[in-house]
Amino acid sequence: MLTGVHIAFVGGDARQLEVIRVCAESDATITLIGYENWQSDLPGIRKQPFVPEALESVDVLVLPIVGCDNSGKVESIFSHEPLMLQAAHMEALAGHATVYTGVAKPYLRQLCQQYGVPLEELLNRDEVAILNSIPTAEGALMMAIQNTDFTVHGSTAAVLGFGRTGMTLARMLKGIGAKVRVGVHRPDHYARALEQGLNPFYTDRLKELAPELELVFNTVPKPILTPSVLAQLPSRAVIIDLASAPGGTDFRFAEKRGLKALLAPSLPGIVAPKTAGRIIADTLLRLVVLQTGKQED
Amino acid sequence: MLTGVHIAFVGGDARQLEVIRVCAESDATITLIGYENWQSDLPGIRKQPFVPEALESVDVLVLPIVGCDNSGKVESIFSHEPLMLQAAHMEALAGHATVYTGVAKPYLRQLCQQYGVPLEELLNRDEVAILNSIPTAEGALMMAIQNTDFTVHGSTAAVLGFGRTGMTLARMLKGIGAKVRVGVHRPDHYARALEQGLNPFYTDRLKELAPELELVFNTVPKPILTPSVLAQLPSRAVIIDLASAPGGTDFRFAEKRGLKALLAPSLPGIVAPKTAGRIIADTLLRLVVLQTGKQED
Repeated sequence: MLTGVHIAFVGGDARQLEVIRVCAESDATITLIGYENWQSDLPGIRKQPFVPEALESVDVLVLPIVGCDNSGKVESIFSHEPLMLQAAHMEALAGHATVYTGVAKPYLRQLCQQYGVPLEELLNRDEVAILNSIPTAEGALMMAIQNTDFTVHGSTAAVLGFGRTGMTLARMLKGIGAKVRVGVHRPDHYARALEQGLNPFYTDRLKELAPELELVFNTVPKPILTPSVLAQLPSRAVIIDLASAPGGTDFRFAEKRGLKALLAPSLPGIVAPKTAGRIIADTLLRLVVLQTGKQED
Repeated sequence: MLTGVHIAFVGGDARQLEVIRVCAESDATITLIGYENWQSDLPGIRKQPFVPEALESVDVLVLPIVGCDNSGKVESIFSHEPLMLQAAHMEALAGHATVYTGVAKPYLRQLCQQYGVPLEELLNRDEVAILNSIPTAEGALMMAIQNTDFTVHGSTAAVLGFGRTGMTLARMLKGIGAKVRVGVHRPDHYARALEQGLNPFYTDRLKELAPELELVFNTVPKPILTPSVLAQLPSRAVIIDLASAPGGTDFRFAEKRGLKALLAPSLPGIVAPKTAGRIIADTLLRLVVLQTGKQED
C-alpha cells in the first residue's frame, strides 16, 4: 500500500488512466495536473493547476510516456491548457521527489540533474521493454494481416533482430503458423533462436535470403533493409519496421520499387492502452515502494 | 494440365482473379463474362457477353463464391452490366458442363436440377472449409486486437465450437499466448481439445464460466450467447461472432448491456483474397481434373 505517499500526475494519454487507477487503489494521495476534461470516479483525487506550489509535498511526479519536449511542453489529451515544465517546478520538487517518465528528452534530463531530482526512465528498463513487446508484437501482427492479401499462416516471415521485441514477435508468428526466419547478428542470439525452432540466419546473408521472404519485420535500429536487400525482395513482400524512427528501412527506395513498407508507430498505447498502462503502473508501483520504503502487499 | 478444357467465369470478386490465373497457367481455354473493367495480362483469355451461345462449348462454368441470388443475378465487381443467369444459359450447358460455385441459393440449385447440370458447391466441402478457417481465424484475431484495450496475450479467451474454424482459431490464440478455453458439445471434441491443451468445457457450463471470459469467439450457428450468459460476462468482454448470419449472439441484449459484440463478415475474401482465391483455385483444379479425366501435374 502507498498510504501517505503523494503522487502527482502531469499530463498524459489513455494509458495514464490505468496508472492513476492502480495508484488510487493502493491508497496513494493523488494530485492531477492537466486533467480538466477527465471526469474521475476515483476517491481521494485532487485536481490542481500546474503551479510550483502544487508540487511542494509531492513524493512522486509522473510525466507522460514521452515526457516533455525540449521546450518543456508536457502533452495532455485531457486538457486544452498548455503545460510547461519549468525550473520553478523542479525547485519545488528538489530534496523530496523522484520524477518518472517513459523516455526523457535532454531538456528534462538536464533540469533534473541541475536540481538534483532523481529521474527514472521506465521504457529504458528491460522488464518494461519485454512486457511492452507483447502489445507491440500484436500490433505488428494486426498490421501484417491488414496489409497483405495472403495469410500470415504459411507465409515466409523474417524477423530481423532477436532482442526484446524480436523474440516475442517471432514466437507469435510461429504460433500463428508462419514459416519464421530470424535474422541475427550475435552468435548467442543465433543459438537461442535455434533452440526455439526459429530457423535463424546471420543478417549478412539477408540479401541472399530476400527472394523467399513475404513478410519482413524489422526491429534493428540501423540501416538494414538497404536498396541492395530491397531489390531482392519479391514484389508482394510487405515490410513492417518496428525500430524507433527513422527505422531500418530505406523507405524512399522501397516506394520506388513499389514495395509496401510501413513504419509502425509506438504500438502499445494504440493497440492495448489498458495493458500498456498496467505495465507502467505495476513497474511504477514497485519502484515507488522501493523509493519510499513502503511494503508491497 | 487442363489443355483443351474450356472454362467460363461469370462474375466474381478479387478472389476470382487468382482462380483465373491458376486455370490460365494450367493451359485451360478461358472465357470471361462480366469482366469488361478488368485489364488482363494473361494469354489465351477471351471476353464475351453473357449470351447462351458463349456457353455452348464450355466444360466448366465458374460462378462467384456467393453464386447468384434468387432472381438469377450474378455479382461482378468488374462490370457495370447486370448479369442474369437464366434457363437459356442452363440449356446451353446441359449435357457437357458442370457448374461450380461457393454456395448455391435455391434458384441455382433448382435450375441445375431441372436441366441435369451437375452442381458443385465448393464451400460445403470439408477441405475448403478447413483451409478457409485459416484466413477466418486471422481475421478474427485482427478484430480482437483492434477492438480491445488489452492484449490477446494473457487474456482469457473462449472459443465456442470446436469444428473446422474453432480448432484453427483456438490453436492460433494459444500460439499468441491467450489463456484459451474451448466450449464444446460433443465428447469427442472435448477429448480432442483436451489433447491439444485447450482446456475444454461443456457449453452447458458457459453461464457459470462467463465471469472469467474477456474474449469470446463464437462459431456455433445457434443461440448460445443468450441473455442469461451475456449477463454474466464482465463489461470489458468483447464478443466476435463467426457463425453465419444471424450468428449465435443475442446482439440486442448485448448492446443493452453495453457489451461490444461484433458479427464478423465473411473474412477470407477480405483479409486474404489471394489465399482465399488460391484455396478455391486448387480445389477447383483438382475437381476439374477428376471431371475431365485429365492428369494433374
